[in-house]
Amino acid sequence: MAFTITYVIDSDAHLELIESIRVEQTIEFPYRLAPSWIQEEIVGKVISIESLSSDKVKVKISYHEGIAGGELTQFLNLLFGNTSLFPRVLIQEIELPASFTDTFKGPRFGISGMRAHLGVAKRPFLMTALKPMGLSASKLGEMAATLARGGIDIIKDDHSLANQPWATWSERVEIVSKAVNEANQKYGRNALYAPSLNRPTEQFFESAKFAKKNGCGALLVLPGICGYDAMRAIADDDSIALPVISHPSLLGAFVVNPNHGFSPGITFGTLVRLAGGDMTIFPSNGGRFSFTLEQCNSVVKASQEPLGNLNTSSATLAGGMTIERVPDLVRDFGNDITILIGGALHDGNLLENALRLREAVESYA
Amino acid sequence: MAFTITYVIDSDAHLELIESIRVEQTIEFPYRLAPSWIQEEIVGKVISIESLSSDKVKVKISYHEGIAGGELTQFLNLLFGNTSLFPRVLIQEIELPASFTDTFKGPRFGISGMRAHLGVAKRPFLMTALKPMGLSASKLGEMAATLARGGIDIIKDDHSLANQPWATWSERVEIVSKAVNEANQKYGRNALYAPSLNRPTEQFFESAKFAKKNGCGALLVLPGICGYDAMRAIADDDSIALPVISHPSLLGAFVVNPNHGFSPGITFGTLVRLAGGDMTIFPSNGGRFSFTLEQCNSVVKASQEPLGNLNTSSATLAGGMTIERVPDLVRDFGNDITILIGGALHDGNLLENALRLREAVESYA
Repeated sequence: MAFTITYVIDSDAHLELIESIRVEQTIEFPYRLAPSWIQEEIVGKVISIESLSSDKVKVKISYHEGIAGGELTQFLNLLFGNTSLFPRVLIQEIELPASFTDTFKGPRFGISGMRAHLGVAKRPFLMTALKPMGLSASKLGEMAATLARGGIDIIKDDHSLANQPWATWSERVEIVSKAVNEANQKYGRNALYAPSLNRPTEQFFESAKFAKKNGCGALLVLPGICGYDAMRAIADDDSIALPVISHPSLLGAFVVNPNHGFSPGITFGTLVRLAGGDMTIFPSNGGRFSFTLEQCNSVVKASQEPLGNLNTSSATLAGGMTIERVPDLVRDFGNDITILIGGALHDGNLLENALRLREAVESYA
Repeated sequence: MAFTITYVIDSDAHLELIESIRVEQTIEFPYRLAPSWIQEEIVGKVISIESLSSDKVKVKISYHEGIAGGELTQFLNLLFGNTSLFPRVLIQEIELPASFTDTFKGPRFGISGMRAHLGVAKRPFLMTALKPMGLSASKLGEMAATLARGGIDIIKDDHSLANQPWATWSERVEIVSKAVNEANQKYGRNALYAPSLNRPTEQFFESAKFAKKNGCGALLVLPGICGYDAMRAIADDDSIALPVISHPSLLGAFVVNPNHGFSPGITFGTLVRLAGGDMTIFPSNGGRFSFTLEQCNSVVKASQEPLGNLNTSSATLAGGMTIERVPDLVRDFGNDITILIGGALHDGNLLENALRLREAVESYA
């Protein structure tokens, strides 16, 4: 078994570039000077080249399964390490050997685990974000309590809430977690608060444990900033064992350029599942960002299709969603998604809007 | 004082996009619904808009210094977190408040510290990489000893050497480090071996300490994979206290798209210095990659220009360099660079080639 990577290369010198890629991603050494067994076994093998237009080709290259050494960190090197430095190379598909996927635990909960954990039988999950930055921890706590009462399943920090003077990290985590848990008790809800783990490296694990100890029900992780492997390490840690929500911050660099980077399915689906994300936030079509229906579909597919023995991840549609969009989202992407509505809930009465959103998804129960 | 970020926006809807960015990177919340003090103080302020062509504008936006909370992780969010999800937005320049840069230790050695540490008075530094993948640890050890004898200052792992079956990580680090240190003694050299820290998150600090304990003289870190802040944490750790070399793997996603991402100076200069990189590897013009002389110059400038009180970083020209290129590189970029030649040293006799490279730079002593 081997890794297979399918590239779309948009260059009039694509044959040269294909040679470069299969060497660059493995031995990074003059091919003719390498020992012959290394030329044959370790350098990538071109499986097929398909012409897409005059300058554009689709190329499949396979790589020896030993090259990743069973590690996500080195797999990212193999996938796009130095190739990222070539313009106009897009990775469209990847196939992973079982020997590789078997080394990963994947999402601890997955879609079915999250359904059991949250007591949500069939409807889409609901998520929201605490904001705007600048509010005090106690204001954010009040907001979180209202949102829990209103029936939102996951209440996360806005991804930009870090350790700002207006609401420092530890203070916010303690106050908001308490507020959500009290609201759950009082109103018979089951909401989880997910603080942002966008913390300095030295405090990454410690902060996750602090969150757990203080009753937080999930964690928001930003793999574009901390790296996919740090998210995996948090997800794998049995002393933490909380649902992990992946946020797309910075990952746009891999995904918005039509001729460079990764497909949305790889960025937000496959890589997030290898890295243990139970829910994967990405910008929906019809919102503030530029994703198409087709791109969103590819994320939903990659988050649910078979990937070794790994659990699924709930594709979380975000970026300017509204209550009015709920029927479209369910029609387009099915029931196993998460709908993240942030700012729009604050237009008018927050509690009423949250209850209205909950009611909108209850019709899919 | 504030952060100032200069964007180049290539869009016919740039006014709308400017509004989006200043809100998206701060409150990510409907502007009209935010409390007025948050509208005024926390949302980014447009300082200037300059038209570059019919659709292209250069925009400066300033942001309250509290937004980053003194942390590199949140600064990356502020810089490009959700903005990365907008196509055709390039960050060309950044100005950082002293209150922010003062929270960083920066490169522990910098160019002058590396000169003292390596006993290199005036000439450019020399670096090479151990490869190709597939060689055993003892073969790599022999190669490293030859390169040390030949007068190379820094002998690093190829960035793709991880924990592959052909030379596992710990075995390689022990054997190569011993080989380099013995060659140093025997031939009166001062070479440093830099193993790659592209390790699973749980083993990141532990591996750095293992390397230190085993006599490694420097560390290779891949911030595109582990995150810039993990590199900073390794650089800051006084129990490790080794020179840190930054590798560009995956960072191409931020830097090769002409209309999206960061300027090369930010990617390989400013961010690497905030993250404590003493040397910063990037693809030189005239090599295997696509960088222009102007882009390389911008990296050299950003690695040396004043940045708070932080040390400089030695711009490390790489990606297909040869001995014949040395005079051009010194002419174009000065003496304070590092010249990284990998594969080309293996064409013919490795020792002779290394000695010839050393001789080529000695003329700049």
